[in-house]
Amino acid sequence: MMLKFDGALRSTIAGALSATVLISAALADPLPSWRDTASKARIIAFVDAVTNPASDDYVTPAERIAVFDNDGTLWSEQPLYFQILFALDRVREMAAVDPSILSSDTLKAAAEGDVATLAAGGTEAIAELMMVTHSGMSVETYRGDVTAWLDAARHPQTGLRFDEMVYQPMLELLRYLRDEDFETFIVSGGGIAFIRVFAERVYGIQPQNVVGSSLTAAYQVIDGVPTVMKEGELFFNDDKAGKPVGIHHHIGRRPILAGGNSDGDFEMLEYATAGDGPSLGLYVHHTDAEREWAYDREGHIGTLNRGLAEADARGFLIVDMARDWDKVFPAGGK
Amino acid sequence: MMLKFDGALRSTIAGALSATVLISAALADPLPSWRDTASKARIIAFVDAVTNPASDDYVTPAERIAVFDNDGTLWSEQPLYFQILFALDRVREMAAVDPSILSSDTLKAAAEGDVATLAAGGTEAIAELMMVTHSGMSVETYRGDVTAWLDAARHPQTGLRFDEMVYQPMLELLRYLRDEDFETFIVSGGGIAFIRVFAERVYGIQPQNVVGSSLTAAYQVIDGVPTVMKEGELFFNDDKAGKPVGIHHHIGRRPILAGGNSDGDFEMLEYATAGDGPSLGLYVHHTDAEREWAYDREGHIGTLNRGLAEADARGFLIVDMARDWDKVFPAGGK
Repeated sequence: MMLKFDGALRSTIAGALSATVLISAALADPLPSWRDTASKARIIAFVDAVTNPASDDYVTPAERIAVFDNDGTLWSEQPLYFQILFALDRVREMAAVDPSILSSDTLKAAAEGDVATLAAGGTEAIAELMMVTHSGMSVETYRGDVTAWLDAARHPQTGLRFDEMVYQPMLELLRYLRDEDFETFIVSGGGIAFIRVFAERVYGIQPQNVVGSSLTAAYQVIDGVPTVMKEGELFFNDDKAGKPVGIHHHIGRRPILAGGNSDGDFEMLEYATAGDGPSLGLYVHHTDAEREWAYDREGHIGTLNRGLAEADARGFLIVDMARDWDKVFPAGGK
Repeated sequence: MMLKFDGALRSTIAGALSATVLISAALADPLPSWRDTASKARIIAFVDAVTNPASDDYVTPAERIAVFDNDGTLWSEQPLYFQILFALDRVREMAAVDPSILSSDTLKAAAEGDVATLAAGGTEAIAELMMVTHSGMSVETYRGDVTAWLDAARHPQTGLRFDEMVYQPMLELLRYLRDEDFETFIVSGGGIAFIRVFAERVYGIQPQNVVGSSLTAAYQVIDGVPTVMKEGELFFNDDKAGKPVGIHHHIGRRPILAGGNSDGDFEMLEYATAGDGPSLGLYVHHTDAEREWAYDREGHIGTLNRGLAEADARGFLIVDMARDWDKVFPAGGK
């Protein structure tokens, strides 16, 4: 049995509904926090071209893969990657419960918030800090640790929650792309498990669409409870040339849009823009000392040299934060 | 400007449309190739419960993750995993072009189709065969190799294309789940890059939703062309206890439905059914020597011992191919 009603009436109503949707879409600005500059125009022109079936540049929805770095591209990364700030807070809390975990000068310095000593130890010291705070627990326990930290911690300069220091224009870009049947992914040098804790709520990006660096894990049945434990060896380093490799492992398809902010993203942009069809590589350029931060070639974090030098030749879009963005954070600011 | 029309009329039409959709859905059988047995009823009852907002077992769409093994669960795996049959054909072709690649007795045996010698060499011999046929080329070249093989090769017993030896009832289950806002993934001990070549076309599962075993890869710019090369070290073994780990790395969320056919899937089913909410673990039991194959405890492939022994206690659904499926392959058969 099928309920029936007049076909002509249905067509009329359907037509009116479609027209409404089309007209609303055309009138609404998909990127309201972007100023009307060439950057915004180029992004919209790209999306229009790849989504218009009549365009030579049309790309099927399945191929509309967009990838974004996280630190410095979707949220801030100053004065240190927020994940390191989490690790510093966490090691202090852990040491308060069990001081014996401070088994090295590096960890002692970290627990005292002595970032200078930690920095002097280089990547090895950072790795040691990350291991002790990111392994030896179940994935659920780790998720709880990060959630509690996000709720309690505030940025030293803005006083904002760290997950409020996301870029409103980039949130709009993510949503705009998804509305246009892109699938959006994060491809970050940061920890996949860390980002997954807030990516869905903050960016609308589900855990399965987060690609990142990771530690090994092991499956164990502990007291009858099937558990995935985070272990202390590096499994994958999703940075620089690792980013296209992470995309290969995790997505299995070349993106047509890639966004980053540093030379750590160069290979990802290079790879995404080397396909046969249309593509867009974009860099967020930190030019706004007033509302966010200004840094590029000399930064101790998020260094951007090659990207700036080769942007013109490669056709990368340089998004100038101070010039192109009407608003930086969703609320409040620096 | 918004086109407007009478609100009451719109409600009436919308109501009629909704009723039509609901009634059509209730009348259409989502699993037409499943016989009306307890297995089918249990699957449908589970899906109804988790998708009904009024049910205590309701699960939000974002949490509706369903994972399926591939070999023996979505397609056949006899007389050997089809990926090994690909490798045997491929090494013979490669040797015809360059005999020097047959650098060991194992590879010589493989190129001659001497499966007995290969099998006697155990997993090490298989690994050697896999490495030489699955590494040292770009991901695009590898994809071309598998595509060409799928087009040319035929199953020795059925004469079917290998990608026609997929189970019609499982294709229907995948589609039914997606129609009910599940996200479907493959979680296979087989090669992720191999499965991705046909998963979208055959199963409707996009490359990013395939989890599997993989080799390392490297990003290189070769003669100016950014390229991801498949390399010859094992990166991840997505089998047994590796399956929940692969799910952690790739999906980052515990599935609520898991389907497998062998003890290699046990941990995946165990993990998926250990969450707080409703869940379903199902095993495809190969009981149909006439239309497919009959094997379980003694199989040289797809051994199913623990799964059968513990199915009752753990509430796993055992799908009996001979009893529960009206049809096995979409067309033709054994």
